[in-house]
Amino acid sequence: MNRIITISREFGSGGRTVGKLTAEKLGIPCYDQELLEKIEEKSGFTKEYIKDRGEYTAHGSWFINAFAGRDSTGKSTQDYLWNHQRDVILELAEEGPCVIVGRCADYILRGSADCLRVFIHASMGKRAARIVQVYGQREESPEKRLKDKDQRRRAYYQYYTDTEWGVARNYHIALDSGELGIERCVELISSLY
Amino acid sequence: MNRIITISREFGSGGRTVGKLTAEKLGIPCYDQELLEKIEEKSGFTKEYIKDRGEYTAHGSWFINAFAGRDSTGKSTQDYLWNHQRDVILELAEEGPCVIVGRCADYILRGSADCLRVFIHASMGKRAARIVQVYGQREESPEKRLKDKDQRRRAYYQYYTDTEWGVARNYHIALDSGELGIERCVELISSLY
Repeated sequence: MNRIITISREFGSGGRTVGKLTAEKLGIPCYDQELLEKIEEKSGFTKEYIKDRGEYTAHGSWFINAFAGRDSTGKSTQDYLWNHQRDVILELAEEGPCVIVGRCADYILRGSADCLRVFIHASMGKRAARIVQVYGQREESPEKRLKDKDQRRRAYYQYYTDTEWGVARNYHIALDSGELGIERCVELISSLY
Repeated sequence: MNRIITISREFGSGGRTVGKLTAEKLGIPCYDQELLEKIEEKSGFTKEYIKDRGEYTAHGSWFINAFAGRDSTGKSTQDYLWNHQRDVILELAEEGPCVIVGRCADYILRGSADCLRVFIHASMGKRAARIVQVYGQREESPEKRLKDKDQRRRAYYQYYTDTEWGVARNYHIALDSGELGIERCVELISSLY
C-alpha cells in the first residue's frame, strides 16, 4: 500500500503551501492543480465548478441546496462531482506515494491506503491577513469571506463524510500554521512520513 | 513571561506520560501529582475529590449537577474547586517554565502566559487497551468507562471555558498518540519548545 499524506485545511491557513513544500521535501508529487485537471477530464465539469463545489456547499442555505436540483435517480450535480472526485483520488493513491490537499481525501482513502492525516488551521486574524495578501482585497471583509468558506466547507464535509470537520481526533496531527509557521509545519509532517 | 506547555488529553491516551517525558527531556517540572497536592492544601478538598471533580462533571446528568448544591451566593462546591485550581495553576505558571497536564490549564493561562497548547488523543480501541493495562479490569467494559469519562470531561470543559473540547483550532498541536506512539509525541512537542 502506498504511503499518502492527506492535508485538510482551513481556508487561508496556508495548508496548500504546507502540502506543496512537504511533497517537495519528500520528493513525491502533490496533487492540487493536477487533481482539478484530472477531475475535469473525468467528470466534464469545469475547473471553476470543481474548485467551488468539490469542497463547498452552494452559497445560501445548505439544506435547500443539498436537496434541490436532483435528477430522477435522486442525485444532484454535486453528488456526480463527488463520485468522480472520489474515483480520481482513489486512482492517484493507487499510483504511488503522494500528498493530496483537501477534497475529503482523508475520508475517501480511509481503509484503502496507508494515510497520514493532517489538519492545518490558523486564527481568524492570521487567515484574514493571509487571504488579503494572497487573493487581494474584495468588497466583502476577509472575515466575512472566511466565515462563509468555513461554514460551506464544514457543511460539505459533514454531508459527504458524516464526520465533523476540524475535530482533533480525526487527524494524526493537527497544527496551527499561524502560530508555528509554515516551515515548522512542513518539518513536523515530513519527520512523520 | 515563562514558557509553559499545557497538555489536554483524552482519558487513556497516555497524555500524562507524554507530559512527564516531555518535561524530563526539557529539564523542567511537570505538575500532575504535585498540582493535586497544592490544590488540596489550598482548597481543603481531598485529592480524591479534586481528581474526580476538578476535570469532570458529577456522574449522571450534567445539567442537574451543574445547578444543584449551590450556596446562598449561587456557587457550587465544584465552582469553589475551580477557583482554587485556577489560582494554583496561575501561581505555578508565575514560578517558572513547566508542563501542566489537564485541568483546563490551556484556558486558564490564555493571555497570562506564553503557552504551547497541546492536545493528545487516541482511538477508542487503543485507549481501551491502555486503561486495562494501566488501571486493570473493572466490572464495566473499558469502552463504557471511556465514554463516561469523555462525556463528563467534555461537559466540564464546556461549562467552565465555554469552548468546545478536542476541537483542533484550540491547540497549537494535536497528536494521535495511539498511531504515532508516545515517544514520537514527546519528540514533536519538545522540538517546538
